[in-house]
Amino acid sequence: MNRFDGRKTDDIRPIKITKDYLIHPEGSVLIEMGNTKVICTVTIDEKVPPFLKGSGQGWITAEYSMLPGSTKGRKFREATKGKLEGRTHEIKRLIGRALRSVVDLNKIGEITLWIDCDVIQADGGTRTASITGAYVALVDALNKLVEKGTLKSIPIKNYVSAISVGIVKDVPILDLCYKEDSNAKVDMNVVMTDKGEFIEIQGTGEESPFNNEELMSLLALAKKGINELIEIQKSVLKIEL
Amino acid sequence: MNRFDGRKTDDIRPIKITKDYLIHPEGSVLIEMGNTKVICTVTIDEKVPPFLKGSGQGWITAEYSMLPGSTKGRKFREATKGKLEGRTHEIKRLIGRALRSVVDLNKIGEITLWIDCDVIQADGGTRTASITGAYVALVDALNKLVEKGTLKSIPIKNYVSAISVGIVKDVPILDLCYKEDSNAKVDMNVVMTDKGEFIEIQGTGEESPFNNEELMSLLALAKKGINELIEIQKSVLKIEL
Amino acid sequence: MNRFDGRKTDDIRPIKITKDYLIHPEGSVLIEMGNTKVICTVTIDEKVPPFLKGSGQGWITAEYSMLPGSTKGRKFREATKGKLEGRTHEIKRLIGRALRSVVDLNKIGEITLWIDCDVIQADGGTRTASITGAYVALVDALNKLVEKGTLKSIPIKNYVSAISVGIVKDVPILDLCYKEDSNAKVDMNVVMTDKGEFIEIQGTGEESPFNNEELMSLLALAKKGINELIEIQKSVLKIEL
Amino acid sequence: MNRFDGRKTDDIRPIKITKDYLIHPEGSVLIEMGNTKVICTVTIDEKVPPFLKGSGQGWITAEYSMLPGSTKGRKFREATKGKLEGRTHEIKRLIGRALRSVVDLNKIGEITLWIDCDVIQADGGTRTASITGAYVALVDALNKLVEKGTLKSIPIKNYVSAISVGIVKDVPILDLCYKEDSNAKVDMNVVMTDKGEFIEIQGTGEESPFNNEELMSLLALAKKGINELIEIQKSVLKIEL
Amino acid sequence: MNRFDGRKTDDIRPIKITKDYLIHPEGSVLIEMGNTKVICTVTIDEKVPPFLKGSGQGWITAEYSMLPGSTKGRKFREATKGKLEGRTHEIKRLIGRALRSVVDLNKIGEITLWIDCDVIQADGGTRTASITGAYVALVDALNKLVEKGTLKSIPIKNYVSAISVGIVKDVPILDLCYKEDSNAKVDMNVVMTDKGEFIEIQGTGEESPFNNEELMSLLALAKKGINELIEIQKSVLKIEL
Amino acid sequence: MNRFDGRKTDDIRPIKITKDYLIHPEGSVLIEMGNTKVICTVTIDEKVPPFLKGSGQGWITAEYSMLPGSTKGRKFREATKGKLEGRTHEIKRLIGRALRSVVDLNKIGEITLWIDCDVIQADGGTRTASITGAYVALVDALNKLVEKGTLKSIPIKNYVSAISVGIVKDVPILDLCYKEDSNAKVDMNVVMTDKGEFIEIQGTGEESPFNNEELMSLLALAKKGINELIEIQKSVLKIEL
Repeated sequence: MNRFDGRKTDDIRPIKITKDYLIHPEGSVLIEMGNTKVICTVTIDEKVPPFLKGSGQGWITAEYSMLPGSTKGRKFREATKGKLEGRTHEIKRLIGRALRSVVDLNKIGEITLWIDCDVIQADGGTRTASITGAYVALVDALNKLVEKGTLKSIPIKNYVSAISVGIVKDVPILDLCYKEDSNAKVDMNVVMTDKGEFIEIQGTGEESPFNNEELMSLLALAKKGINELIEIQKSVLKIEL
Repeated sequence: MNRFDGRKTDDIRPIKITKDYLIHPEGSVLIEMGNTKVICTVTIDEKVPPFLKGSGQGWITAEYSMLPGSTKGRKFREATKGKLEGRTHEIKRLIGRALRSVVDLNKIGEITLWIDCDVIQADGGTRTASITGAYVALVDALNKLVEKGTLKSIPIKNYVSAISVGIVKDVPILDLCYKEDSNAKVDMNVVMTDKGEFIEIQGTGEESPFNNEELMSLLALAKKGINELIEIQKSVLKIEL
Repeated sequence: MNRFDGRKTDDIRPIKITKDYLIHPEGSVLIEMGNTKVICTVTIDEKVPPFLKGSGQGWITAEYSMLPGSTKGRKFREATKGKLEGRTHEIKRLIGRALRSVVDLNKIGEITLWIDCDVIQADGGTRTASITGAYVALVDALNKLVEKGTLKSIPIKNYVSAISVGIVKDVPILDLCYKEDSNAKVDMNVVMTDKGEFIEIQGTGEESPFNNEELMSLLALAKKGINELIEIQKSVLKIEL
Repeated sequence: MNRFDGRKTDDIRPIKITKDYLIHPEGSVLIEMGNTKVICTVTIDEKVPPFLKGSGQGWITAEYSMLPGSTKGRKFREATKGKLEGRTHEIKRLIGRALRSVVDLNKIGEITLWIDCDVIQADGGTRTASITGAYVALVDALNKLVEKGTLKSIPIKNYVSAISVGIVKDVPILDLCYKEDSNAKVDMNVVMTDKGEFIEIQGTGEESPFNNEELMSLLALAKKGINELIEIQKSVLKIEL
Repeated sequence: MNRFDGRKTDDIRPIKITKDYLIHPEGSVLIEMGNTKVICTVTIDEKVPPFLKGSGQGWITAEYSMLPGSTKGRKFREATKGKLEGRTHEIKRLIGRALRSVVDLNKIGEITLWIDCDVIQADGGTRTASITGAYVALVDALNKLVEKGTLKSIPIKNYVSAISVGIVKDVPILDLCYKEDSNAKVDMNVVMTDKGEFIEIQGTGEESPFNNEELMSLLALAKKGINELIEIQKSVLKIEL
Repeated sequence: MNRFDGRKTDDIRPIKITKDYLIHPEGSVLIEMGNTKVICTVTIDEKVPPFLKGSGQGWITAEYSMLPGSTKGRKFREATKGKLEGRTHEIKRLIGRALRSVVDLNKIGEITLWIDCDVIQADGGTRTASITGAYVALVDALNKLVEKGTLKSIPIKNYVSAISVGIVKDVPILDLCYKEDSNAKVDMNVVMTDKGEFIEIQGTGEESPFNNEELMSLLALAKKGINELIEIQKSVLKIEL
């Protein structure tokens, strides 16, 4: 049985990753995943947070936002309200953790890599698209440091992508769009390496609890999707880690 | 091989749940889990958020905080700084989701149940202790509504507890205290029902990714711990759901 | 004598206006003016601010922001800092005034048109590009209301564009890019209709005062640029006002 | 004539001061005064505010908060609202002044002693209980510095306690609980030393002005209560100043 | 022995109260007390706070601020910092309480009287000058309501003034200017009626505690000063209460 | 035809500039322009913003505020709301730019001159009166530095004033009071030197666009008004630049 948009349960949406999307940042990517579109940029700041001063170690921090026009019904601007909502905090922390976990921060020196993920258009899966796109921008920015001679090699061992999975009408499916996401009884985001190892699992039984068997199906779907995403990342980056 | 505090890898710390800890709130509990101590209260507000007005449905929302004296080295007060930190947002959202998922919100009428978890003393596992304790305060508060005749029955079907698991020096262990938590390469929080079903899984490979086998060990440990916690909840509540 | 990028003193940069750039908002445009790129959206909110309730009149309000990756050297995120900077206030008020001045607010009913201008890439002239682009998105959104039968006609009489002019090394020039703008001794933004009438003039002698003759040269340049911009707006909109 | 809870007009409520209530802070106390319960902690910070840098002098600063579940009807959380209410400012300043006035700040070196008073349960007199409890935690923390050899002696000369007095139905009474406080026409807080000298007097004729004779009665009651509180402080601290 | 400015210990500074200082507010006063100058205004708002809606009762609320140029060394602007400092909260609450205590709020209907005290120039005693000046503006505003026929009579029974007293170099003195205030070992503010009754006493032994005898001297000085201030208020208002 | 207050179209209101209005700031002025009254102060801070440290250059920054009692209907206090409104940002930026443009910042050393403009009473033209008054306070403050020997000469070459012009009922008029301002179809503020050169022009066709001829009339009126203001500045300052 096909999904409302014609996809099979284990199909991801069409993906397009545009590298060097902007002229100013050290790394920049537009990732399109179906109708979801996110600009991911990496900017290098020659400072570290206070707790790392003098440590010789670098840092990675992430921020996330949705443009007011990215959603159906205008999304209020957090800058105007004067504070980030809880969901934004949750997502920026997830993106930061995911990318920090694959970079050897001892090898980049005392710099901060700012990851910015700005959702231009939202149709489900914006946080996982952010991670998948930001990873490409990050490798690209580090690669430029290698080309400039600042770094000897890219201090990253694994490819990393992220994808959402969920259970809709009792069927586990891969890469939920917004319409599916709002009807999911279980919702899970998975961040995984090209070795098939987990960096992060966040699963919620929003409407009802889920059992072990369902968990296994979801993780298998996620693995399939992540492998496909990593192939696309490789073809865009053309870099061997 | 035993842990630094004498526990086996699958031992939880000594637990004590004191019901009716305070005189004012509709439900209140002091939960002690080793040195971790959290006051969990439930207060009933005869209003719902705007998006539920007229829906006949109720709401549950949670807040979480740590007292300045709860940690080693004073914890700054978020009220003074004027905003909640990201970690607080993440935890209050987790507690709220976990408790909403087991209550039939259509059966409580248009009221809001405020869950407040205030950490008096922290030694790891404050978010999971908050959920385990708040669940007891919540059932107790709803039971009082039944006794007053406001509700016909407690609109909850499952017992729910939460526990942390992690991998320290390559060994999966249950219920991490702070010292273990800071050395964990993988850190996971699990919220589960008495039927052995998952309400939430949040696992992070903070230092390095983890594989499927490790995931399975961690989930098994979590299940053992949760079963023990639920037995304690039952003995305190003495209520059949 | 030509400018550093080959333009003559009275040349505007290459312009591209892409209509229907996003799927969710009622009107949406990507405007590119050389390297400056701004997403302009119009969203309809079925409410008016308190001071207009019951008046039968509608309202237009604007917000403006720059993505962190839009500038050379990361632009801090105002949402994280918790407040808008003064420059942002100045620009959003300018955009709002400019667009309110051409719409007959008595004819749109009690709705609010939210104008959002988000700068994807900045190279000078972002506030004027915002006005020129937002005008197109606004007419398009109102036109859809006409097509749906909500409005009888588009309640706008004039085409409106905006452009920057300035004096660099004693020479008045049109449409300054960032490099020129930072060296300008006089900086002026002009908003004008297709009838050649002014909606707004904001001129500052940042480095030194300017005399009447210089003012006249700048206004003449602005008029030339505005006429060219309005031709492009007309060709994109294909609507007779 | 007795009060509604059986006390005479010059009776204080049952007092219990538990020292070493928490494991992390340098000093910590749970003070219970009837149903009012406050956790008072003292944490040492090896820095001083900018205006004291290089002065050789230390500082004492206080913060005060009420847990959401401490009051009848949930107390909103100031951290969520993003700012302290006026009453909180007033109380934290009072606690800070009272404790600074008895410590010789020139003798503690350039450190800051953070006093935190968190009300677990409120039934009137929380600000005075905070001062009485925090004094004990403060002496205890300084005594530990003496035992460690950091200080030669405790730089405090006087015992200090605080109590509320007020006029209810024209009768001056000592140590008002919440019910009495809300009906008081005059409300006064007194901070006093074991020598019978005043550190602070704050009296308000909330409902009607009070005359000199009434003032004298209130101060006499306060003195009696303070003497009793100081006896309890002495028996808990077992330290000669 | 005279004070540095030639005054005796029980002298107040030269006072000038200018009524109808501004054209817009319902009541407005410039009070000058030596070099201390405060603009006090009263504005009528035809609403009450939520907790009074439908009660038939009115409300009085006060705000206080110091102009940046009012002090030696620029006073930072609280509006720019985004929050009121604790001292401001303390003072605005004091002013509000003092004025509410003399007005029969049941007789003014459901309106809010906004008291604004803005310090133009500060030289000690700004909070007491604010109360003394605002009282005049308040009576004047209420008198205008009587003249308009909105009120039958001014719902105030007592004249009210406020003054500071303190102990400097062991001598109790009246009406401290800034130089004296910074050297006071005891500092007290007294609000009193023309009947010699207290509305508020706030005394602090900032540098050292004070005994009962000292308290009595200070209260006697305050009474003398208040009587003189009330005579001036009467001569300016020319209204019998 | 005369205006409602008897003025001709090219009359400014009666002006009074009182120098040395306050005792603490380095420069202070009360400017009265009809019923509009603004206190302008200049305070010297021996620091510069971070971007100028080590540059040898000084800085000028301005702040603007309206007292709550300055307007018809109480103006809310921005400090209480916790943020500046957009209009305030716009005005403080305008004042800062205008004054920076006439001072040779390289000649004052690394200090910051804080300009504070606080509107005591508002009746239109508060931003232009602020500039005109602050200019006098600024020259006076710099002159004191010359007298003290800190500066060799006043680093200012031009006199500067500001005035509003506008079109009301199709007639261009000079120096609009509030009543005229609220009925203006075009509103313009002009800052100009004694050489007749422009420092800033801000013109808005709030109700309808304006043509070139109207612009010329407005600028001519502004020039006349500015000349008169500069004469008054000269007579108050008695300083040759």
